[in-house]
Amino acid sequence: METIKNYIQDNKDRFLDELFGLIRIPSISSIEAHKPDMVRCAEYWKQLILQAGADKCEIMPTGGNSVVYAEKIIDPSLKTVMIYGHYDVMPVDPIDLWKSQPFEPEIRDGKIWARGADDDKGQAFMHAKAFEYMVKTNQLPCNVKFMLEGEEEIGSPSLYKFCEDNKELLKADIILVSDTGMIAEDVPSITTGLRGLGYVEVKVTGPCRDLHSGLYGGAVANPINILCQMISKLADENNHVTVPDFYKEVVVVSQEERELMAQAPFDEENYKKELDIVELHGEKGYSTIERVGIRPCLDVCGIWGGYTGEGAKTVIPSTAHAKISFRLVPDQDFEVITERFCKYFESLAPKSVKVEVTPLHGGYAYVSPIDMPAYIAADKAYEKTYGKRPVPTRSGGSIPIIAGFERILGIKSILMGFGLGTDAIHSPNENYPLHQFFKGIETIPSFYEEFAKM
Amino acid sequence: METIKNYIQDNKDRFLDELFGLIRIPSISSIEAHKPDMVRCAEYWKQLILQAGADKCEIMPTGGNSVVYAEKIIDPSLKTVMIYGHYDVMPVDPIDLWKSQPFEPEIRDGKIWARGADDDKGQAFMHAKAFEYMVKTNQLPCNVKFMLEGEEEIGSPSLYKFCEDNKELLKADIILVSDTGMIAEDVPSITTGLRGLGYVEVKVTGPCRDLHSGLYGGAVANPINILCQMISKLADENNHVTVPDFYKEVVVVSQEERELMAQAPFDEENYKKELDIVELHGEKGYSTIERVGIRPCLDVCGIWGGYTGEGAKTVIPSTAHAKISFRLVPDQDFEVITERFCKYFESLAPKSVKVEVTPLHGGYAYVSPIDMPAYIAADKAYEKTYGKRPVPTRSGGSIPIIAGFERILGIKSILMGFGLGTDAIHSPNENYPLHQFFKGIETIPSFYEEFAKM
Repeated sequence: METIKNYIQDNKDRFLDELFGLIRIPSISSIEAHKPDMVRCAEYWKQLILQAGADKCEIMPTGGNSVVYAEKIIDPSLKTVMIYGHYDVMPVDPIDLWKSQPFEPEIRDGKIWARGADDDKGQAFMHAKAFEYMVKTNQLPCNVKFMLEGEEEIGSPSLYKFCEDNKELLKADIILVSDTGMIAEDVPSITTGLRGLGYVEVKVTGPCRDLHSGLYGGAVANPINILCQMISKLADENNHVTVPDFYKEVVVVSQEERELMAQAPFDEENYKKELDIVELHGEKGYSTIERVGIRPCLDVCGIWGGYTGEGAKTVIPSTAHAKISFRLVPDQDFEVITERFCKYFESLAPKSVKVEVTPLHGGYAYVSPIDMPAYIAADKAYEKTYGKRPVPTRSGGSIPIIAGFERILGIKSILMGFGLGTDAIHSPNENYPLHQFFKGIETIPSFYEEFAKM
Repeated sequence: METIKNYIQDNKDRFLDELFGLIRIPSISSIEAHKPDMVRCAEYWKQLILQAGADKCEIMPTGGNSVVYAEKIIDPSLKTVMIYGHYDVMPVDPIDLWKSQPFEPEIRDGKIWARGADDDKGQAFMHAKAFEYMVKTNQLPCNVKFMLEGEEEIGSPSLYKFCEDNKELLKADIILVSDTGMIAEDVPSITTGLRGLGYVEVKVTGPCRDLHSGLYGGAVANPINILCQMISKLADENNHVTVPDFYKEVVVVSQEERELMAQAPFDEENYKKELDIVELHGEKGYSTIERVGIRPCLDVCGIWGGYTGEGAKTVIPSTAHAKISFRLVPDQDFEVITERFCKYFESLAPKSVKVEVTPLHGGYAYVSPIDMPAYIAADKAYEKTYGKRPVPTRSGGSIPIIAGFERILGIKSILMGFGLGTDAIHSPNENYPLHQFFKGIETIPSFYEEFAKM
C-alpha cells in the first residue's frame, strides 16, 4: 500500500504548481474591484476538487461570493467529515513592504512567499491533496464534504444564511478546519478556542469644511484631536477596556486552567525579539498567553484624517475616522458588545463635534472540548506524524463562522492548523513553510483513519 | 486724469484673463512633482510685472524655488515700497470635495473659484495691476520693488537666506503685503499681528511589522492606540496645552487691550452657523477672538496608520503617524517651543513603542504698531475707498517670513489683506469675491499716495 509520505514525494512538484495557480488569483474579498477574481478562484477550486476525486462539485450562489461545495459519499451509514476553508484573502497594502509580489508566489528559504500562502489557500489546499491521496489509493474511510467560502476575511456575511438554507446538504459529524497555527515547528498544538470579533468604523465631524489652522486654530474643535481623546478614553491605565459592561459576560477561567495554560511553552524574550519591541503591553493581571487567549481586547486597526501627504500643510480637517475592532471571548455576544461600544463612544464626544459609529461585522467566540471524539482523533494523528502529543491552545484569532456552524448546523469543528507565528498572515510578506505544508498533508489522512474508527 | 476706478472698468476682462492664466499653473510647493510648475509660474509672473512697467525683473535662484524680484526706481531719494507675495499654493486634497476643478478658475456667484484665487495669487496680482495703473498714468509717487517667493506655504525655507544674501538689493522703507483678510465685506480691517508657527511630524512604532490583531491583540502595544493616548495628553480639560513651559514667554495682553478687542464686530451665532457646529471649543478663560489672536494653540493637522481602505481589515499596524502644528504668539520662539514639544512628546511614550519627532518648519509671530507711518497711510487708503476707517485686528494665521523680514532686513511690514473668512483658503472650494479683488486694486494706489507724502 502506498504511504502518504511516498505520495507526497512523488507528487510534490505538481502540488506546488497547483497551489501556485490558486495563489496567483488575487481573490481579495474586501475590495469590490476583485469580484471577477472571486469567480475565477471558485472555478479553480472546483477543478481542483473534482480532479482530486469528488463525486460532484458545485459553485453555489449566495448573496455575496459563491460557496464551493463538493462531496464524496462512499456509504451514507459511515461518518461524514466536512472540510471548511476559504478562498478569499486579505488586502496586500502596504504593498511597498513586500519583498516579492504578493500574488506571484516564490520559494525562498524553504518557504512559500505570497498573500494566501498560509491563510487560507495553502492550508485549505492541504485538504484537497490529503483527500486526493485517500481516494486514489482507496483508503478513504468515511464520507467527505467540502465547503469553501469567499468571504471569511470580511466576516462571512453570506455563509450564515447559506448554512440556514442548506442544513440537510451540510449534515456532517465534524467540521475539519485548517485556518489556525501551531505553537512551533516542533510543538504541535490544536486550537481549542477562538475569540469572537466586533468591528466598527467611527467618524468624527467638526466644522463642515476643512479650515485654515491659523485663522481658526484654538477656537474650533479639531476632529482629529477629539477623536484621539475619545480613543484614549477607551482604556484605563491598567489597559482595561472602559466600555461599560464590556467584561460583564466574560467567562472567568479557573485558576487551575490558568496554571495549565502557563505550562505551554512560551519564550517571552524571543517573542519580543521577533517583534523588535522592548516591552509587552496588555491588560494588567494577565500573562501574554492569557491576554490573547482568554481575555477580550480593543484595537484601532486604522485611523485617518487631515493632511497625510508629503511636507507640512496646516489645516483643521472637517472629519477624522478610525476603524476599531474588539476581540471577544465566551460568553460575550458581539452584538451586545457592539451596542455598548456605540453608546459609550457616542457619549465621549463633546458637543463641539458630531459622531457616527457604523458596525461593520462581528462573530461569536468558540470553544471545543478536548474530550470530544474528533479532538482525540486529531490528537492521535498529530502524535503519529510528530512523535509527540499536541498541546491544546486557545487562539486570540477569530473565525466567527465556526461559532455559527455550531449554532446553525449543530456541528462542532476541529481546528487542525499548521501555520506558524512567523507566517505573517494579514501582513506584508505572508509565507508558509514547505515543511508545514507537507506535514499537514501527511497528518490529515491519519485524522480520518482515527475518527472513522470511533 | 484717469482714475483707478475707470482704469479697472476699462481693463477688467484682461485682468481676469491674466489672473486665470496664473491660477491655471498648479504651483503646489509641498509636492515635489510640481517643481516644473513652480518654474512656469515664476516665468509667468516675470512677464506680468515687466508688462506692468517694471524696469527690470529677474528670476533669482535660491536653495529651493526661485524668487521673482523686480523694481522700478524713479528717484533714489524717494521712498521705496517693496511688495511681498507668494506664487506657490497649498495642495488641493480632498479633491472630491471641490465643486469645480481647483486649477480651472470659474466665476460663479460673483466669486472666482480656484486654488490660489485668494491665497496668494489673487491678492498678489492686485499689486501688479495697481502698479500698472500708476506707471501707465504716470502717478507712481515712489520707488517700487517686488519680491515674490515660491515657498510660503512650506514655511519659506529659502527666503531667509535670500534676504541675508541680498540686503542691499532689498532695501525699502516698508514691505506691503496682501496675504491676509478683513473682517467683512463692509468692515475693512488691517492685520496688526500674526501668530508664529511650529510644525512637526511624529511617528510611533510598535512591532516591526503589521500584526494579525487576533493573534496579537491585547498583548502588544498598538501604535495607533498609543499615538491617540499621547495626543490626548497634549491638552488638559480646560484646553490648555500641557507641554511644559508652553506659555512661559507668552506676552500677556492688558485688560485694556482685551476690552478694545472685544469691541470688534463678531457674531458668534453666525460663526457657528457658517461652520455648522453647535458649540465652540477652545482655551478656557478666553473669547474666540482672543483664542485666535493673542493665544497660542496646538492642532493635529493630519493623522494616519493601519488600514484605511474600504471594509473591515483587522490589523495591528507597525506604525502610526501624525502632523502637529502649534500657532504661537509674541514672544514665543518657535525653536524653543518645538524643542519643548519634542522632549515632552517623547516623554509621553510608553516603553512598548519607539517615537520619532521631526520638526518640519516654523516661524516667529509678528506685531505692527498702529502709530507707524505705513499703518496711518493704509488707514487713510481704506477710509477713502470704503468710506470708513479700518479696524486693527490680530490674525490667528502665520506668515513666518514677515517676522523674518524685520529680523534680517530691519523692515516692518504692513498687511493690507482683502480676503474674507468665507474664502476657504487652504480648503476645497477656495474662492475670492470679484468685489474684493477690484476693491483691493482700487485701494492700493491710495496707500502709495499717502505713504509718499509722509
